[in-house]
Amino acid sequence: MADLRLVVVGAGGRMGRALIRAIEEADGVTLTGAVERPGSPALGRDAGVLAGLPALGVPVLDEPQAAFEGADGVLDFTSPESSLLHAALAAEAGLFHVIGSTGFSAEEEAALAALAARTALVKSGNMSLGVNLLAALVKRAAATLGEDFDIEIVEMHHRMKVDAPSGTALLLGKAAAAGRGVDLDERAVRGRDGITGARHAGDIGFAALRGGTVVGDHDVIFAGPAERLMLGHRAEDRMIFARGALRAAAWAQGKPPGLYSMADVLGLTDF
Amino acid sequence: MADLRLVVVGAGGRMGRALIRAIEEADGVTLTGAVERPGSPALGRDAGVLAGLPALGVPVLDEPQAAFEGADGVLDFTSPESSLLHAALAAEAGLFHVIGSTGFSAEEEAALAALAARTALVKSGNMSLGVNLLAALVKRAAATLGEDFDIEIVEMHHRMKVDAPSGTALLLGKAAAAGRGVDLDERAVRGRDGITGARHAGDIGFAALRGGTVVGDHDVIFAGPAERLMLGHRAEDRMIFARGALRAAAWAQGKPPGLYSMADVLGLTDF
Amino acid sequence: MADLRLVVVGAGGRMGRALIRAIEEADGVTLTGAVERPGSPALGRDAGVLAGLPALGVPVLDEPQAAFEGADGVLDFTSPESSLLHAALAAEAGLFHVIGSTGFSAEEEAALAALAARTALVKSGNMSLGVNLLAALVKRAAATLGEDFDIEIVEMHHRMKVDAPSGTALLLGKAAAAGRGVDLDERAVRGRDGITGARHAGDIGFAALRGGTVVGDHDVIFAGPAERLMLGHRAEDRMIFARGALRAAAWAQGKPPGLYSMADVLGLTDF
Amino acid sequence: MADLRLVVVGAGGRMGRALIRAIEEADGVTLTGAVERPGSPALGRDAGVLAGLPALGVPVLDEPQAAFEGADGVLDFTSPESSLLHAALAAEAGLFHVIGSTGFSAEEEAALAALAARTALVKSGNMSLGVNLLAALVKRAAATLGEDFDIEIVEMHHRMKVDAPSGTALLLGKAAAAGRGVDLDERAVRGRDGITGARHAGDIGFAALRGGTVVGDHDVIFAGPAERLMLGHRAEDRMIFARGALRAAAWAQGKPPGLYSMADVLGLTDF
Repeated sequence: MADLRLVVVGAGGRMGRALIRAIEEADGVTLTGAVERPGSPALGRDAGVLAGLPALGVPVLDEPQAAFEGADGVLDFTSPESSLLHAALAAEAGLFHVIGSTGFSAEEEAALAALAARTALVKSGNMSLGVNLLAALVKRAAATLGEDFDIEIVEMHHRMKVDAPSGTALLLGKAAAAGRGVDLDERAVRGRDGITGARHAGDIGFAALRGGTVVGDHDVIFAGPAERLMLGHRAEDRMIFARGALRAAAWAQGKPPGLYSMADVLGLTDF
Repeated sequence: MADLRLVVVGAGGRMGRALIRAIEEADGVTLTGAVERPGSPALGRDAGVLAGLPALGVPVLDEPQAAFEGADGVLDFTSPESSLLHAALAAEAGLFHVIGSTGFSAEEEAALAALAARTALVKSGNMSLGVNLLAALVKRAAATLGEDFDIEIVEMHHRMKVDAPSGTALLLGKAAAAGRGVDLDERAVRGRDGITGARHAGDIGFAALRGGTVVGDHDVIFAGPAERLMLGHRAEDRMIFARGALRAAAWAQGKPPGLYSMADVLGLTDF
Repeated sequence: MADLRLVVVGAGGRMGRALIRAIEEADGVTLTGAVERPGSPALGRDAGVLAGLPALGVPVLDEPQAAFEGADGVLDFTSPESSLLHAALAAEAGLFHVIGSTGFSAEEEAALAALAARTALVKSGNMSLGVNLLAALVKRAAATLGEDFDIEIVEMHHRMKVDAPSGTALLLGKAAAAGRGVDLDERAVRGRDGITGARHAGDIGFAALRGGTVVGDHDVIFAGPAERLMLGHRAEDRMIFARGALRAAAWAQGKPPGLYSMADVLGLTDF
Repeated sequence: MADLRLVVVGAGGRMGRALIRAIEEADGVTLTGAVERPGSPALGRDAGVLAGLPALGVPVLDEPQAAFEGADGVLDFTSPESSLLHAALAAEAGLFHVIGSTGFSAEEEAALAALAARTALVKSGNMSLGVNLLAALVKRAAATLGEDFDIEIVEMHHRMKVDAPSGTALLLGKAAAAGRGVDLDERAVRGRDGITGARHAGDIGFAALRGGTVVGDHDVIFAGPAERLMLGHRAEDRMIFARGALRAAAWAQGKPPGLYSMADVLGLTDF
């Protein structure tokens, strides 16, 4: 089987360097291009060296078209604007595009959907295999259990994280709400404190712990009459997001145009 | 809708009394009969009083046919022999039969399957909703994740439990093995101790903790490269098994003859 | 050794009945009196029957002095006013007094301290052995670890609980603050939600989960650079509070007047 | 205050490189020497480069006396033989010595104790702050709780670990046994499996989970009547062992000759 040839956009950033390391540790995958924005100090440097590896002979460029030459697909954990720009160029060049950027507005989502008519796009706010499988299991559990099972979601992250709850906790909450056929925004209870009164049936509770250097722990608890189902995930390092992107890339190779999720990649859409 | 009318076999035992309490706390369900073996001290007593409730006007009998009169179905957490006997009588009388007994031999399983040609039988070694849903989720997770995710099952039970691992841990191990398409007996590693060498890919590990008064904790861990998926269950009291049996009964009402599992009852067969 | 002879005040309440059952299951302890407020439906009934046990020959009275006759001490999980009243009567009669009531105002605390000049009083908001030991361990851990270990406290209780965080979570937070030599009120962060910014060194965070029938789970997490210390407690049923009160009673027997805590009872004051 | 000047023995190994990184990330500590055994490929290389850092101007030598010149102390995670050799040289040169090597025989322990008459030696099988504090808390909890609290120790490590239970689990078991005043060897129950019978009062149980890339999780459970105390530790990366060694070094500076443990360093000896 021919090698999978990939370009990393945002090669100088923390996730970009992790993607380069993930490509190098995998079999059958080759880094053929690396892109950074004009003015980046990474420009002209060897992408391998940048990622703490031996030189790979792949310089970081600020001309995506040149970097895309001869590649099969693009890995991109940057920003909505940057991802939209590179998705358009990838579509033009016939490359699939794996997007881990977050924070897309409704307009940006619509623009991305339009580009997906021209090439295969895989987009997810969390590329880890474990979290995406967890979300599918949570959806299924919520669909199976009635409202006599109260849903609580608790997460812990490092002390530097500035927002709560985490995006992944919200993703899990959406999966639970989808399983129940309700709207998360109407049922979410966040930051419970003080005289709250008894819990309302159907609420989905969130709690956020912060401290130390925790990469990311998530637990979804279904607390029913005299029993609890506990579905959780522990991330040990950020490489799992890079490895998830590689799995998405291998899957996207040869797929028809469309906007895909990690649930598609992992075969979890029938949960 | 008409009431569901149920008979409890083994009414004087710990689970029999729990079943009577579960029937009384539920809406739309009535206890119409209670059976014990000849010679039981419970014979002739009121089933409600026996279960620590007010009198229900239902005496405990040692004649199943009389106790089955006018009922829709039978709940039976006794022994393989007793369950086979009562299943035959239930089939004759046109009653469905919910069986929580465990330890059936291959011959006894075959005899039960034959009876299932004549009435609806639901049989499970663990009637709790949570554990059965957990098993379905474990099966699906095991089918989704490759052997780079190591499966470990750990359980904790009270200090009086005499065997390890628990039957429910083995049930979860079977679900994991089924998801992977392997035979649990060939892959189970139990009681790891000493110089074990590195773990073999594909093993399914079991560990058993014992202490205090713990009703039953189970965790199935899928430990992969830098991430873990954790699927667990906590039982707070034994009433969850009785309530699961009632759910099975409500489902079995009106079903065609057949041998069903809790996965059928809970709609989990397509996992 | 002579038996320990105890009176239960508030004998008709949920905790009063639990105390009666705890006395009956213990060796070397006898219930000699039971008190309820005037007008209580429990008056005149047998205290054992009230608690779901065989008759004990101890009627529930609304005259504490009569009920205190011949006793060594009093167990009292009622209210601040009731406990103050009965503590005065106990002091007069020369009985020690174990108080599990909560919500004392500063004035009521002062009144209680005055009564403690006349007899031995043991008072705690949580009488369980495990939680009090946990608090002592938390205090010691907080005193040992610097502020590079972030402290987070998370608890889970049943869906009917109306306040958050739990009193026991606050007790644990106070133990942590005492270990660090800071004031909890100045450092507590409760109900984290939204754009919070990075965590401040020295904060003590609280999170509350609600659902199902959970009796009470508590975890105190010390999250430092690349490691976490986790100190927790799981309560399986409310009898542990009653058993803790009995342990306090056995300890208080023969002690000089004074206001004691469960830390005194358990020998944890030198942590 | 003058800088702490340290030498790393075994500078080319996994722990040696971690020690070098820990020294560089700390304030007030300087690497002044690096030692490897004769024939090591690391000889002559710059110790910083070896550890993935910029050059530090400290070459790796195979002559300990030269490397010890001008230093205050030595960090040494090598082997019993190597540590004994270097401890003798350190004593001669008037340097303190922090030893993280494991597997000392009784004779080697005695030889080390003899050297401790001449300089300050700190030795521990686990240098992390969290695990040593955990051991102290476990000892204290075991001393406080009676045998109606069953002790179970469960640990999880990566799939490559070849022995079970982990050395740290045994260290925690010894702390529990010491707290109870019993001998661990007589009370340890390892690898529970099959028809075990009910648990014996006073047993200390061990269970080992293996999978994925887990650095090291440990939990000590005290399971009593209707409640559990849970004391645990999570290691996120191996740097915590290096940082613990630095803390030991800062403490050892200026101490009189003697054989010290991490409990001495952390002020935990009065637990």
